[in-house]
Amino acid sequence: MTTLTLDEGTLHKNIETLGNIGVDSQNGGRSRIALTDTEKQGRDQLVAWMKALDLTVHVDEIGNIFGILPDQLGNTRQNILMIGSHIDSVYNAGALDGCYGVLAGLAVTKAFRDRGQAPSRPIIVAAFTNEEGVRYQPDMMGSLAHAGGLSAEQVLNSIGTDGTRLGDELQRIGYHGNMSLGTLVPSQYLELHIEQGPILDQEGIQIGAVANLQGISWHKIHIKGKANHAGTTPMSMRNDAGYASASIITFLRDHTKSKPGTLATVGSIQFEPNAINVIPRTATLTVDLRNPDNSTLCAAEQALVDHLDALRQAEGVTIEREVLARFDPVIFDENLVSSIEQAASSLNIPHSRMTSGAGHDAQMIARIAPAAMIFVPSKDGISHNPREFTEAEDLVQGAKVLLATVESLLNISHP
Amino acid sequence: MTTLTLDEGTLHKNIETLGNIGVDSQNGGRSRIALTDTEKQGRDQLVAWMKALDLTVHVDEIGNIFGILPDQLGNTRQNILMIGSHIDSVYNAGALDGCYGVLAGLAVTKAFRDRGQAPSRPIIVAAFTNEEGVRYQPDMMGSLAHAGGLSAEQVLNSIGTDGTRLGDELQRIGYHGNMSLGTLVPSQYLELHIEQGPILDQEGIQIGAVANLQGISWHKIHIKGKANHAGTTPMSMRNDAGYASASIITFLRDHTKSKPGTLATVGSIQFEPNAINVIPRTATLTVDLRNPDNSTLCAAEQALVDHLDALRQAEGVTIEREVLARFDPVIFDENLVSSIEQAASSLNIPHSRMTSGAGHDAQMIARIAPAAMIFVPSKDGISHNPREFTEAEDLVQGAKVLLATVESLLNISHP
Repeated sequence: MTTLTLDEGTLHKNIETLGNIGVDSQNGGRSRIALTDTEKQGRDQLVAWMKALDLTVHVDEIGNIFGILPDQLGNTRQNILMIGSHIDSVYNAGALDGCYGVLAGLAVTKAFRDRGQAPSRPIIVAAFTNEEGVRYQPDMMGSLAHAGGLSAEQVLNSIGTDGTRLGDELQRIGYHGNMSLGTLVPSQYLELHIEQGPILDQEGIQIGAVANLQGISWHKIHIKGKANHAGTTPMSMRNDAGYASASIITFLRDHTKSKPGTLATVGSIQFEPNAINVIPRTATLTVDLRNPDNSTLCAAEQALVDHLDALRQAEGVTIEREVLARFDPVIFDENLVSSIEQAASSLNIPHSRMTSGAGHDAQMIARIAPAAMIFVPSKDGISHNPREFTEAEDLVQGAKVLLATVESLLNISHP
Repeated sequence: MTTLTLDEGTLHKNIETLGNIGVDSQNGGRSRIALTDTEKQGRDQLVAWMKALDLTVHVDEIGNIFGILPDQLGNTRQNILMIGSHIDSVYNAGALDGCYGVLAGLAVTKAFRDRGQAPSRPIIVAAFTNEEGVRYQPDMMGSLAHAGGLSAEQVLNSIGTDGTRLGDELQRIGYHGNMSLGTLVPSQYLELHIEQGPILDQEGIQIGAVANLQGISWHKIHIKGKANHAGTTPMSMRNDAGYASASIITFLRDHTKSKPGTLATVGSIQFEPNAINVIPRTATLTVDLRNPDNSTLCAAEQALVDHLDALRQAEGVTIEREVLARFDPVIFDENLVSSIEQAASSLNIPHSRMTSGAGHDAQMIARIAPAAMIFVPSKDGISHNPREFTEAEDLVQGAKVLLATVESLLNISHP
């Protein structure tokens, strides 16, 4: 069998069509928050495309969608090669995050259909529920549960930021499927994704063979000081929750300077009472620490804890720290990473091994199957933003590398 | 004439009665925001008390309330001794800020009524509109306008945080008076107030003779960086508006360490998009700088400006700075301050000269007349809070010092 052909036009058209669902005319972005009406429209469109390709569609009890291209013998369950990602989005998102990987998976199955041949192993295109974690926590929920990290009951009973129960919303939009959670266990898992970071774009490399994924450590820190008048409280008598929060932010920046590779971000903060002439009584902030090396990540966590201890003393404030999420670094499957590199080489596409800074469904599926990811450049590293952009040619090259990787895993020889 | 007698019981009762208007049963505080229905109730109560004391009540065109005790000849306009403050409050306030000074002024006029004698000069008790500046900006609005710093038109056309026009709200609550703004020019002005700071309480001194008032410099700082993924953007490539804002806060704290007496507060902050895993695109914060010495205050402002310049370079962010308010330090009238000290001494009450850290109506009236203030202790320095507290005895001593100061200014000899 000769190599398969990617239908570039359909891939582009599908990205555009899905990207127009939930679009906000005001800001140019789109919002398909998990299990909302607009996300249901996205799901309906995806299922329609799957059916048009004559894939067997299954929806599991937490709404994960699977489109199955059976092997030559009609087998759908053994030796599965799964290609997955997600189609839910953050608020005011770009069109590529997640969707690109799912639609490129569809393009792989279409390449078989166009050739009129079945693969030597079943290929399953998966769209996992609630990867973004905007409305229901945690993020990467559907893949985590698929890998056994959450029970169906836990997922269905999740309460959203809007007070809704996930299971009720799933029923409402008609995606409470009848397949048991975790039924379709892949033998190998691939995920194609935009980088959501600046490295490939900056280095002018079209393909990242993602060898590992950073560990993530999320904290919520609540500081309680004493509200007092800004004009009458001597500096030495202050218990300033706002100052304490700022000191954490600058401390973390300093820490990363001595520990290259450690990322530290404080993305969110609130002061109370938040008035110009009142020393903040409370400050609440989040800390996002990441590192591909777990011991260095642990060192950053310990440095944070030590700084909080010092601050309690120095500023006379109380500090509570809650761990919101903790994922160890993930090392992807060496064979799959090599296959991706070889596929890119066979197509003469510049590629590089790299670390994923963001979390992805692949890290969850890596718990139960060999997994790896393919990255394409994100212009200026921008993502979660209407300005998220990847050159059309780069999108095609990424899908071609995915297809060539699938071919090599299915022992389809290149010419 | 012998010394007059303060009616302590009525003073306490009036403070309690006024403090119960606008009370919030949930948190124990009260909210009488300028020109709301609850503040109208407070105004109505004050006017009723003034009329019960047979004071001549005038309301000017911006709602400032004046209760006049004419002199022996019935004169109400010449050689006025004014005692003033305010009865509007912040949200969830204590019962003393402002109200204590107005009600102690009433107690002074009551002491004359109780004795059945008219003073040698007209005494006017003033309650200025919108001292707190919660709903309409700027704060100290009524006294500023009374002193010629704002026109009636500017005041009436102020738009509130709730979108209302001040003049409309004034009409609605029935306090758009017919006296022209600035009619009643005092020859001397006294204001009795809780300290709203910890100094008297900590030093165990019952009376502060306020000799001066700090300069105030308020800024709003808007920082614009670049929103990017927390997990994929190398630390060296960040334009982190949140980090920049934190750096301003810690810089200001460091600055105050080398410049004793300078107060610097960042009470309010907002990040956008304020998400745990997104580097803040924007940060907006306020800066409150205070110092009794104008050149030191100017130095702090310059240090802030220099730091912003350095930050723009170092972090690659844009920074806009808006001056929200700038008041030079005020030096109160030496004769009045001495009179207060002598009055306290004559009553054997421990007293001390001090600086006001907070802004007060007295600083505005000081533009057009000799002015000074009397402070009583605030427990733990707490104010703008339901826990604002001054011992009953301290409230009485403060009012007695006010009365004795008035007596000395009216040449009523002590025994």
